[in-house]
Amino acid sequence: MTAALRPLITLLTDFGARDAYVASLKGVILSLNPAANLVDLSHEVPPQDVKAGALILAAAAPYFPPGAIHLAVVDPGVGGQRRALAARCREQFWVGPDNGVFHLIFSRAPALTLVSLENPAYFRPRVSATFHGRDIFAPVAAHLSLGVDLDRFGPRITDPVSLNFPEPGFEPEAIRGEIISVDRFGNLVSNVPAADLTAWLGQARLHLRVGPLRLQGLARTYTDVAPGEFLALEGSHGFLEIACALDNAARRLQAGVGLAVEIRQAPSDN
Amino acid sequence: MTAALRPLITLLTDFGARDAYVASLKGVILSLNPAANLVDLSHEVPPQDVKAGALILAAAAPYFPPGAIHLAVVDPGVGGQRRALAARCREQFWVGPDNGVFHLIFSRAPALTLVSLENPAYFRPRVSATFHGRDIFAPVAAHLSLGVDLDRFGPRITDPVSLNFPEPGFEPEAIRGEIISVDRFGNLVSNVPAADLTAWLGQARLHLRVGPLRLQGLARTYTDVAPGEFLALEGSHGFLEIACALDNAARRLQAGVGLAVEIRQAPSDN
Amino acid sequence: MTAALRPLITLLTDFGARDAYVASLKGVILSLNPAANLVDLSHEVPPQDVKAGALILAAAAPYFPPGAIHLAVVDPGVGGQRRALAARCREQFWVGPDNGVFHLIFSRAPALTLVSLENPAYFRPRVSATFHGRDIFAPVAAHLSLGVDLDRFGPRITDPVSLNFPEPGFEPEAIRGEIISVDRFGNLVSNVPAADLTAWLGQARLHLRVGPLRLQGLARTYTDVAPGEFLALEGSHGFLEIACALDNAARRLQAGVGLAVEIRQAPSDN
Repeated sequence: MTAALRPLITLLTDFGARDAYVASLKGVILSLNPAANLVDLSHEVPPQDVKAGALILAAAAPYFPPGAIHLAVVDPGVGGQRRALAARCREQFWVGPDNGVFHLIFSRAPALTLVSLENPAYFRPRVSATFHGRDIFAPVAAHLSLGVDLDRFGPRITDPVSLNFPEPGFEPEAIRGEIISVDRFGNLVSNVPAADLTAWLGQARLHLRVGPLRLQGLARTYTDVAPGEFLALEGSHGFLEIACALDNAARRLQAGVGLAVEIRQAPSDN
Repeated sequence: MTAALRPLITLLTDFGARDAYVASLKGVILSLNPAANLVDLSHEVPPQDVKAGALILAAAAPYFPPGAIHLAVVDPGVGGQRRALAARCREQFWVGPDNGVFHLIFSRAPALTLVSLENPAYFRPRVSATFHGRDIFAPVAAHLSLGVDLDRFGPRITDPVSLNFPEPGFEPEAIRGEIISVDRFGNLVSNVPAADLTAWLGQARLHLRVGPLRLQGLARTYTDVAPGEFLALEGSHGFLEIACALDNAARRLQAGVGLAVEIRQAPSDN
Repeated sequence: MTAALRPLITLLTDFGARDAYVASLKGVILSLNPAANLVDLSHEVPPQDVKAGALILAAAAPYFPPGAIHLAVVDPGVGGQRRALAARCREQFWVGPDNGVFHLIFSRAPALTLVSLENPAYFRPRVSATFHGRDIFAPVAAHLSLGVDLDRFGPRITDPVSLNFPEPGFEPEAIRGEIISVDRFGNLVSNVPAADLTAWLGQARLHLRVGPLRLQGLARTYTDVAPGEFLALEGSHGFLEIACALDNAARRLQAGVGLAVEIRQAPSDN
């Protein structure tokens, strides 16, 4: 891949919108490559919540074009023993700490080239112990966008850090999953791929248990039920989701991440 | 209008800053047109509040240049019967659901070309039932920015959905309006155009009743009164506004959208 | 300096993310110079908090390249007697109200060219009394980005408004400072440059008093202590900072801006 005319760099952090941290990253990148096209993925990852960052990154990155460079800085271990890395897979590039923030990207990638960032020629001249986003990751992303080859940044590695995301359980007559994120609308997003539901349980009507809730069948969209009623449906990223029409399901159920979800074939007399 | 070198696409949504939704829109657009110049109008429209979105859009859009494409996705009816539309008026383009979010733009436009988005050639290959922002509106906006003619997207329509915004009432001796939005500073913005005040009531000193508040005359700017005092003035978008100098009027009055405003000529002995 | 191909304009305001104000600025700039590259510094400056804005600006601006134009609109005195200004120093440009928001930039600059914005040829045709960001500062920044010379905007001035930032006190055996900002992670940032600590107190182990807290020595990074423990270290912008490993120091201490910090050499028997 060669450098595009306006190479695309996305930014995901837990820095929030108020402080100077995000702008510092952008200033460093634009100082090295004024042609970079910067796009915010999110800066509202809850502080130091690597899993939440990993989920947002995995949800957004597939919509970006080949060659996009994804900079992800959720980095509670900054300055400690954790490695810094850059990678190429899925026709895109990835730069950030080796703490699992890329787990969902790397673990399903057909081919993965991964290097440990160790060449200070591509860092800022003085590297702080507290802000590698600005001093290591941003300049590396900028140099990548200028066409620097991945192997120039450091030696190949093959063992990136994994995260323990809960996996759905497939039993003969049921799938057991859980809620792994809640969006701004209060929709409860589970870890059960909607495509797996019929593949595993067949075309029969489904019966869902979600906390105190019992739901029959999948809706197609939020307006399929009356306002205020709960529904289960395939969400925007392909996972089973629990929503409440024109209302906030999470608030109504007083529930969130970790809530158990069980799906079975409905009894035939239902 | 032909496609500009860096065509401008603005984005207005109720998606918030945390989730992957806004970035998904941007990825889709930049995958189709890497030269697009993306500008956020706001993503903090209260969830599913079409009226609030319509007000922000109408306040910001006039400052953008001819040819700008405004993508507005506040879409509680996604996947249901509501139409999807693209339009040209006021020398700009408009893409989003047909639910009134463009009401303030269309209702006052001297000329309006409007099409129903029905040509799947310009959608993403698989259209979800829950996220038309990503699957229909973003790709249509991107294709518009590439110079695709409006009529390629679907048939002409002439009956866009309206919203019921409260209109000010003009009586012989008074104007009756209401507060229609509250900004971050706590300023209470009414639906009464400041230009109408003197046009209707003449040059005499005005007397305002706003909830429990009585105000005499219009101030020119926030510093015309002492800190902590209330004032009425022409706000930044040309409407009568109630403010509190160096303080938050909405919080001080414990009031917001819907509060009644009455303006009359002050009695001559005042 | 000549205008760059994609001249960089940063934006700092207290407008927040919801209302149409920030987008209005951007629309005005892009209408005048479609090639401008707009980067948000922050729009979450607390309303009318000029000091907070000055700190964010001073923290972020140094990372931007020469020629960058910084537009800063925290402007409680809009429409009153305060001057409007544009400046050149540190190889960058500065546009905003003359209320101290640039104090930390100007007061340490080796050379400073400063003009009072008085030439309406570079303003919007109708200047409101309440929104000079849109009507004066944004168009001036856009014209600067098009290469207009600073002296075209108005007469030279030499007496910009100062702010009273607390300065650390250097006593024979101690440095006394205070917390001047709290970041999103709850880190307490002081006004004591970390470089001054050893320059003043020598290489001996330091003893810190921060509110109820007693700390010995400086840590290098957040992971140097166990989770939940407090530490003092050099923060990302070079100032002494109090943090709590994997936790929020401000919340834990129930403290924030204004908290006193005292640093001395530790007694030798410690």
